Amino acid sequence: MNNSFPSKQDVLDVRKRLLPFVHRTPVLTCDQIDQITGNKLFFKCENFQKAGAFKSRGALNATLQLSAEQRLNGVATHSSGNHAQALARAASILQIPAYIVMPANAPKVKIAAVEHYGGIITFCEPTLSARESTLREVISQTGATEIHPYNNYHVITGQATAAAELIEEIPLLDLVLTPVGGGGLLAGTALSVHYFLPQATVIACEPAGADDAYRSFREGRIIPSINPQTIADGLLTSLGDKNFAIIQKHVADIVTVSEDAIKLAMRYIFERMKIVVEPSSAVPLAALIEKKIVLKEKNIGIILSGGNVDLLQLPF
Amino acid sequence: MNNSFPSKQDVLDVRKRLLPFVHRTPVLTCDQIDQITGNKLFFKCENFQKAGAFKSRGALNATLQLSAEQRLNGVATHSSGNHAQALARAASILQIPAYIVMPANAPKVKIAAVEHYGGIITFCEPTLSARESTLREVISQTGATEIHPYNNYHVITGQATAAAELIEEIPLLDLVLTPVGGGGLLAGTALSVHYFLPQATVIACEPAGADDAYRSFREGRIIPSINPQTIADGLLTSLGDKNFAIIQKHVADIVTVSEDAIKLAMRYIFERMKIVVEPSSAVPLAALIEKKIVLKEKNIGIILSGGNVDLLQLPF
Repeated sequence: MNNSFPSKQDVLDVRKRLLPFVHRTPVLTCDQIDQITGNKLFFKCENFQKAGAFKSRGALNATLQLSAEQRLNGVATHSSGNHAQALARAASILQIPAYIVMPANAPKVKIAAVEHYGGIITFCEPTLSARESTLREVISQTGATEIHPYNNYHVITGQATAAAELIEEIPLLDLVLTPVGGGGLLAGTALSVHYFLPQATVIACEPAGADDAYRSFREGRIIPSINPQTIADGLLTSLGDKNFAIIQKHVADIVTVSEDAIKLAMRYIFERMKIVVEPSSAVPLAALIEKKIVLKEKNIGIILSGGNVDLLQLPF
Repeated sequence: MNNSFPSKQDVLDVRKRLLPFVHRTPVLTCDQIDQITGNKLFFKCENFQKAGAFKSRGALNATLQLSAEQRLNGVATHSSGNHAQALARAASILQIPAYIVMPANAPKVKIAAVEHYGGIITFCEPTLSARESTLREVISQTGATEIHPYNNYHVITGQATAAAELIEEIPLLDLVLTPVGGGGLLAGTALSVHYFLPQATVIACEPAGADDAYRSFREGRIIPSINPQTIADGLLTSLGDKNFAIIQKHVADIVTVSEDAIKLAMRYIFERMKIVVEPSSAVPLAALIEKKIVLKEKNIGIILSGGNVDLLQLPF
């Protein structure tokens, strides 16, 4: 792709490539939540995706793109979250090794999920520099290819397929909302809306306590996240440069929401829709509830990013 | 129907009649739970039904069967659970009054749900005799028609439509499992399996701490529930005679499960399927997990009865 953005044809090719490996997740609606927000909402349920999050799409696409020689040595990443599971699953499908660097304090349930898919875990200190240096070491020993969780065009194109499916199913959307962390889902969604529903707008939603994307978007340069504080544990990371370039070009706005609004939105999704989502998934609905996005009677697509939440510690 | 069971044509007619008013709920599968149980499970998701439970089907069908004159005076019941909401919703659709007798200690969320649908609530002491005498008084004052939550053929036929839809979608089931409380869902399911998939078997699943249906089935007479203890709050009631007659004829067996198995099954459904269910819904899966039903590689339909659970008090 040579430094140019993934193309419309790239997204179409990836959709076909992923078909045997990921769910086409359902799009759900909820009259009660529509009444609360005054709009017609269409929720793309990536919480029902394989390994419980949209991350399965990007990890699988990036892994499938490796040459036969690269595959021999496997893939590697550092992650304590959904990308770790997704990459371990992708590698298990191709029967190649996945080397996952995880902080020693990662939740047991996430460690178990990576092990379930046969991931080979190396534990390290829970700091970014320890994670990066441990990953470098693992890669130098194994020859594995690093699959970055978001700053990678193959990953971005994989994530783009969720919005492409949503648009195919609901072609009359005025607006599509996603949460933003590293920007993989957001950049992919922005590309799909640009290619397949250019009259619609994309707005990203971010916790106020982790507002690096909001500030980066306004200042026109990447401002890294410093000590972010939010229950939306999937949104703590800073933007990648590949993601940011796409976001600058194809995203209309980024808004921030309070922790209380995230908790309330999450509770509505559990109580009214009867589905399990992780806090990150609730951030776009929080923006509507908190009136950070003020619209009436619009058709709004929302990507529910995942469902991997600790049920013993629900924040409501 | 004159004391004979609802017929195949009755179920078909009711399906058509309910079409504008209830969801055709999805059937979900889960590879991970299939692996755990060694069978292929098909979950009919009545937790996604209007008002959050299968009860919407029966309450609506019974209300639709009233004469114009009966409708004038409205409908009445005593219930602290899903039937109260379902009947209030049914009455609101027909724009007739619903008189709901509720114990004064009913959960606030359930009271709010009945009020949301415009139900007219009369509170009483939290005993069965107070509930029954208060209901008689309300009926004598209003002329409303009592809609019993389960001992009513129109209600049973309404509940039968859930299994009819499941069978239409998954025609190769070997077995269908439901929880059993008063027996409305079980009797309806047994009729639908008998009429539409006669080669399949129906087994009911009941908490060991509320095993009146289990004991009644074995002794051949209705043994009322005395001080039942279970987290499956939808299954505390005793069987009705109309329900029991159908169950005796068309149900193969009733098995009981422990509270621990119910909690574990409920947790699997939240964690692996990413959906919200009430404890009653988890009872059939509990029977498979606890090996009260021992089968391998069968296609098993499970009716998930509802999703109205207090999220602040999840039992795991």
